[in-house]
Amino acid sequence: MSIDRILHPGLRQRIVSAEAAAALINPGETVAMSGFTGSGYPKAVPQFLARRIEQAHGRGEAFRINLLTGASTAPELDGALAKVDGIAMRMPFQSDPDARRRINAGKLDYLDIHLSHVAQHVWFGFYNEIDTAVVEVSAIHADGTLVPSTSVGNNKTWLDLAKKVIIEVNQWQPAGIDGMHDIYYGTALPPHRKPIPLVRGDERIGQTTLRCDPDKIVAVVLTDAPDRNSPFNPPDADSQRIAGHLIEFLKHEVARGRLPANLLPLQSGVGNIPNAVLAGLASSGFRDLEAFTEVIQDGMLDLLKSGVLRYASCTGFALSPEASEAFMRDLDFYRQRIIMRSQEVSNHPELVRRLGCIGMNGMIEADIYGNVNSTHVMGSSIMNGIGGSGDFARNGFLSIFLSPSTAKNGSISAIVPMVSHVDHTEHDVAVIVTEQGLADLRGLPPRRRARALIDNCVHPDFRAQLQDYFDRASRDSHGKHTPHLLNEALSWHQRWLDTGTMKA
Amino acid sequence: MSIDRILHPGLRQRIVSAEAAAALINPGETVAMSGFTGSGYPKAVPQFLARRIEQAHGRGEAFRINLLTGASTAPELDGALAKVDGIAMRMPFQSDPDARRRINAGKLDYLDIHLSHVAQHVWFGFYNEIDTAVVEVSAIHADGTLVPSTSVGNNKTWLDLAKKVIIEVNQWQPAGIDGMHDIYYGTALPPHRKPIPLVRGDERIGQTTLRCDPDKIVAVVLTDAPDRNSPFNPPDADSQRIAGHLIEFLKHEVARGRLPANLLPLQSGVGNIPNAVLAGLASSGFRDLEAFTEVIQDGMLDLLKSGVLRYASCTGFALSPEASEAFMRDLDFYRQRIIMRSQEVSNHPELVRRLGCIGMNGMIEADIYGNVNSTHVMGSSIMNGIGGSGDFARNGFLSIFLSPSTAKNGSISAIVPMVSHVDHTEHDVAVIVTEQGLADLRGLPPRRRARALIDNCVHPDFRAQLQDYFDRASRDSHGKHTPHLLNEALSWHQRWLDTGTMKA
Repeated sequence: MSIDRILHPGLRQRIVSAEAAAALINPGETVAMSGFTGSGYPKAVPQFLARRIEQAHGRGEAFRINLLTGASTAPELDGALAKVDGIAMRMPFQSDPDARRRINAGKLDYLDIHLSHVAQHVWFGFYNEIDTAVVEVSAIHADGTLVPSTSVGNNKTWLDLAKKVIIEVNQWQPAGIDGMHDIYYGTALPPHRKPIPLVRGDERIGQTTLRCDPDKIVAVVLTDAPDRNSPFNPPDADSQRIAGHLIEFLKHEVARGRLPANLLPLQSGVGNIPNAVLAGLASSGFRDLEAFTEVIQDGMLDLLKSGVLRYASCTGFALSPEASEAFMRDLDFYRQRIIMRSQEVSNHPELVRRLGCIGMNGMIEADIYGNVNSTHVMGSSIMNGIGGSGDFARNGFLSIFLSPSTAKNGSISAIVPMVSHVDHTEHDVAVIVTEQGLADLRGLPPRRRARALIDNCVHPDFRAQLQDYFDRASRDSHGKHTPHLLNEALSWHQRWLDTGTMKA
Repeated sequence: MSIDRILHPGLRQRIVSAEAAAALINPGETVAMSGFTGSGYPKAVPQFLARRIEQAHGRGEAFRINLLTGASTAPELDGALAKVDGIAMRMPFQSDPDARRRINAGKLDYLDIHLSHVAQHVWFGFYNEIDTAVVEVSAIHADGTLVPSTSVGNNKTWLDLAKKVIIEVNQWQPAGIDGMHDIYYGTALPPHRKPIPLVRGDERIGQTTLRCDPDKIVAVVLTDAPDRNSPFNPPDADSQRIAGHLIEFLKHEVARGRLPANLLPLQSGVGNIPNAVLAGLASSGFRDLEAFTEVIQDGMLDLLKSGVLRYASCTGFALSPEASEAFMRDLDFYRQRIIMRSQEVSNHPELVRRLGCIGMNGMIEADIYGNVNSTHVMGSSIMNGIGGSGDFARNGFLSIFLSPSTAKNGSISAIVPMVSHVDHTEHDVAVIVTEQGLADLRGLPPRRRARALIDNCVHPDFRAQLQDYFDRASRDSHGKHTPHLLNEALSWHQRWLDTGTMKA
């Protein structure tokens, strides 16, 4: 590996092996790492840290860290550290199967908070101080400023607040990414905050690099390793139907004059359904679309390429290996059209509301009154976390949730009497879409929401059963504003736990 | 009644009786009225409208309206219209007993939305167009601009959007209130929104009067009637204990350096407990406090008078008759220290986050994981509505919820295994206070939140029972991240419905 990416002479002197860098992290530390949705996370130090932890545990010594990131990372980070029981507390979002298993076994404390809240809560002093930051960059300039790689996440905050910093310079990341980022240094703590001066999603309000006092940088590690980049499935029939309903709805809103012809800035969650929506938009006839979102997936690159999407603002990537290659190949093209920001900016309530984002996110389940569960399976096991869905659902112009109407081979209905956990309340959900259809909940009181969801979104296998619940609740409930039978409201989930199906 | 308050010659010509004005409202109309927490609502036209509706119903004719306001009003408005079954749909917040009864009987559709969302959702076209606005003002200037009275609420939006406008000029309202308001006309729809240029809570960014095209004003009605102004109980022992815990916590936060010595702008919900907190602050030693809130109660006037509070920004008042008199007597003093704004500004997420408000709101119940129910009794009956609690809980620096630990003579625990309705999710609740103590949930994963709430907040009569639920859930739950027994999670509420107590 070459040191060409490190132009600051002093920092060239700090190059060490990943193993040596990992040795600088002590038991009990709070460690803040880069990484958002499997991009831009440190590739080497966490693995050597995991090895060290494993060895310490082998000697009977306690060694765990509190781990903060931007969002989810990869097996080399969350997976490696979870496998060796190296994480005491994790926040704010993660999707690693090993970590999830430990969380749901009650062995790993997990703190699930809105992605727009993370940086400020750390600044506010609500958590421990940051002992060490481990941040991947693509290069170090001669003046010591750092060129971010494929995610920005909370890196600005980690570098500002950490007592010591370990930098991984990943030469796998394209050198040409330099210039794509927009790091806003205008944030402050109350009572010193000012308006964020961004009024269009494609504006730049910051600088292209991250600042960090070189004296805090205790180690620089060279890496050459790809991001998590996992393949996307081509959209299946249900995803395509969901996309179809949504696009029809958006066209209807334009026709009614409630949305401009080029819509408003799109936010799109990560996964196969959002990707299907993006694929659907490609052939929808829409032009000059905008994206103000967290993550750029394959579908968004395609939209940029075809000119359907004018620009995309994000804080990270989640690409397939093919899309990643295409991205690197056409970097000059994408550098004109992509702006990468800190997640406190990409998800900022002030900006999401000002720009009027259209929030499109997946969900685990919704109930008949429009409450949405994004995080918990059967009320008690975490799936991933709320991520930024709340930032957009609460503050955007439209708050849309998407899901197939069933899960687990049809044994689970995504529309239930009462959700087993609430992440987005009835006050924050405008539209719900399944492959069955779309329920526009705007302006509807609770019982009319129930009718819209039963008529349009629930799978036929569960429709009569849900209608029966609603009818009996409407007749027998203590109150008739939001009719519920409390003895039964969560019985579908309990039945699934007991029998393997929600079906009565 | 005198016409001295109406200086616009053309509008003097439109003075009619309240009865004649009410006759201009047609069956099926969407009517947007002024009023916020019992202040500044129209006093005369709604009562004559109710009489007309009653007469129409007597003749077998259909006559109902959709009713929008700022927030709650009074018996002369919500009460009168609900009693005659004159409301088909009501939004966004109400507290009238007759209306509540009809809502919970399933006879009145009620739409409960965040107060900061109301105006924009109407502008977005999510609801019906506004046929008629009925707005109380304190005077009409010669140029036709309108001097608001004791609340601003959504009046700007109602006047801008209504096809026709009825103005009530209430000479009971002090003439000297002129100059106290700050009406911001810089809002717009996406994609044309700009930053709201307010960086301190005591800044003025608008004009003192409301605009309205005089040609739209179809009637001007003279009134001379007080606001709802209901007495406050002096703080009881439990409220004082709650206030004591909260103030001790705030002092602790200052000592830890997490809050400035004069705190950050306070938002305080309405009711006896918030009033007790304000009373507690009076003798707490704090100085130069600020309030950026929805409603000014008695306690806040006292704080202004004593100099403990430097200024208060609000959108309405909720005063006792004595406080109202004191307010009028010292209007010149208060005009220097109070700024009244539109509720889209007083509650704006952008401003609440920028200023770093400390949100202090009541609740119906919280569960062991920190989810808060602000709106529903036993999961199905509405109490009042979410109001602005979500605007502040989500976006403020600190999100605090306050409640006695029991209700209904000790038969109900305010801390339950699972709330029967969620208005503020685990992601949005920082601190919970009962007379038993305070639980600081910041930085705690779910099971540690449960321990903090059981140890600090639950009433001794329910502590063992709640600990038992948590212990068994921790042992037997499907997942151990947020342990729950779904068969039992809502059983406390069902038991209360069945037996009159949550006690096992």
